[in-house]
Amino acid sequence: MSRISEHVSLASDQLRSGDTRALSRAISAVENQAPGSVELLKELFPYSGRALTIGITGSPGAGKSTLVDQLARQYRRENRTIGIIAIDPTSAFSGGAILGDRIRMQEHFSDPGIYIRSMATRGALGGLARATANVSLVLDACGRDLVLIETVGVGQDEVDIIRLADMTVVMLVPGMGDDVQSIKAGIMEIADIFVINKSDHEGAERVEREIRALQSLAARGEWIPPVVKTTATSGAGVSELRAVIGDFETHLQKPGLLLDRRARNWELRLIEMLRDNLLDKAREVIPEPELARLAREIAQHLRDPYSVIEQVTEKVSRS
Amino acid sequence: MSRISEHVSLASDQLRSGDTRALSRAISAVENQAPGSVELLKELFPYSGRALTIGITGSPGAGKSTLVDQLARQYRRENRTIGIIAIDPTSAFSGGAILGDRIRMQEHFSDPGIYIRSMATRGALGGLARATANVSLVLDACGRDLVLIETVGVGQDEVDIIRLADMTVVMLVPGMGDDVQSIKAGIMEIADIFVINKSDHEGAERVEREIRALQSLAARGEWIPPVVKTTATSGAGVSELRAVIGDFETHLQKPGLLLDRRARNWELRLIEMLRDNLLDKAREVIPEPELARLAREIAQHLRDPYSVIEQVTEKVSRS
Repeated sequence: MSRISEHVSLASDQLRSGDTRALSRAISAVENQAPGSVELLKELFPYSGRALTIGITGSPGAGKSTLVDQLARQYRRENRTIGIIAIDPTSAFSGGAILGDRIRMQEHFSDPGIYIRSMATRGALGGLARATANVSLVLDACGRDLVLIETVGVGQDEVDIIRLADMTVVMLVPGMGDDVQSIKAGIMEIADIFVINKSDHEGAERVEREIRALQSLAARGEWIPPVVKTTATSGAGVSELRAVIGDFETHLQKPGLLLDRRARNWELRLIEMLRDNLLDKAREVIPEPELARLAREIAQHLRDPYSVIEQVTEKVSRS
Repeated sequence: MSRISEHVSLASDQLRSGDTRALSRAISAVENQAPGSVELLKELFPYSGRALTIGITGSPGAGKSTLVDQLARQYRRENRTIGIIAIDPTSAFSGGAILGDRIRMQEHFSDPGIYIRSMATRGALGGLARATANVSLVLDACGRDLVLIETVGVGQDEVDIIRLADMTVVMLVPGMGDDVQSIKAGIMEIADIFVINKSDHEGAERVEREIRALQSLAARGEWIPPVVKTTATSGAGVSELRAVIGDFETHLQKPGLLLDRRARNWELRLIEMLRDNLLDKAREVIPEPELARLAREIAQHLRDPYSVIEQVTEKVSRS
């Protein structure tokens, strides 16, 4: 056993003992792809697959964080431990993720049964889905009973992330004008449960009718996604949501269902992992200054990009 | 010269003569990555780079299509030819892209100076940015003076697409509650021009104040993105927008500016192209049934995904 894997083994034992500081360090290592992090993930993998992972998505301002916090409180009363991965749209202007994280961390700081990690949507191409999946795996392997992944629900990126979960909760709010249809395109299909939050606002009934109308057009499986109305700020409807999540958990226990879903998710993830891995390799082969030089020559029309890519692909394969 | 490249040369000559049916066929070929399409792109590349490409982005329901149509009409009055690439969120439920396309096509059908192509946001991983870039290149090389690319403006995907353009117009609408900040995170930074559409609605002034407030926090370059108020349905403000686009065109003519921007865009595109290319290669090496089998074994915890990826990466390199 090499020194690195010895070190990793120690880390993995400590991690699985529930040490929160070790967990934070491990998550940072995995997020930043620090040396040894792949070894750590390999070591933790056999202990994963026990947590129920729930993806919660909705437009900005739908009240995701508040609902997730309420849900976490509900599960804590049942003595189940929670990991929360909050994926925040971050901007150079607003620095949203960091601020939100701090505020929420303070509130739950005293309860080691809730672990919150915020992640920013900016950064490396395609890197966020990978990072989220790996962080989720760490939380799972370290014994969290539930992993809640919250993300803004528009764009392929978010769909990719939410696909990692065992179940998907899609949040809507009233008063989005006549945009309901277009906003949820691509997200509607992946919902196992719908939540209409801010259901005390005008228009909640209309949102429900629209969901029902869209559902009536869709192919029906055995599970017809229920619609739960909540007011996350007051906690109204949260125990109903908890019950419906329980129903879906029961549904997933039908022979083969959870395994099928996870196998399908792993198929998508394998492709993403492969793409990310190959890209890392490509970046090694074509260092940044060379890339910049080639890009400038293309912009000047001194070369065509298609031949450049063929040459570099060739070089990656030979490396 | 091989038979394929002879065929392609003929196609490319016909294309550049302005034949609309040839254009449609070429775009379909490029979109579907038909055999010979890379050769066609290589051949067309030297003729590209003349069109001004404008990315127009905004939330669903902001009125992008209407504004783009108004802008196209304005340019037609100046006798400039237009290519429009409309990236629509498509859903298995709504089939939005196709319907929208038909309606718009009918209206412009009689004017060969406007060519509209709708593209769906669903489909192959990372494939949309590539397809959009290639279609834009075809339109450009075939002599369109302007290429307008419209897309829903949230998510990394959309940012990647809009980055292809020489300039970016970000559309906002009043009445989005207090979400203005979060919605535009990630998009604010790439705006060269802001449009507040539906500016006759209540709250337009507030949106403008918020943009100004965010701008005051940002680093200032030579160009401070102006804010134009429009009502696309009536056409109000469209000629002001046209004028501001003209100002930015003039700004881009400063020595090196357009070239710098295009070189930066090509750098991002090269990475994306490389990733897509390598992924195509990976899919050849690991065919779908094998992928499905591996994914199932991972879901059953018979293997860990990290070792699988290492083995496949190895295999891709050796292939």
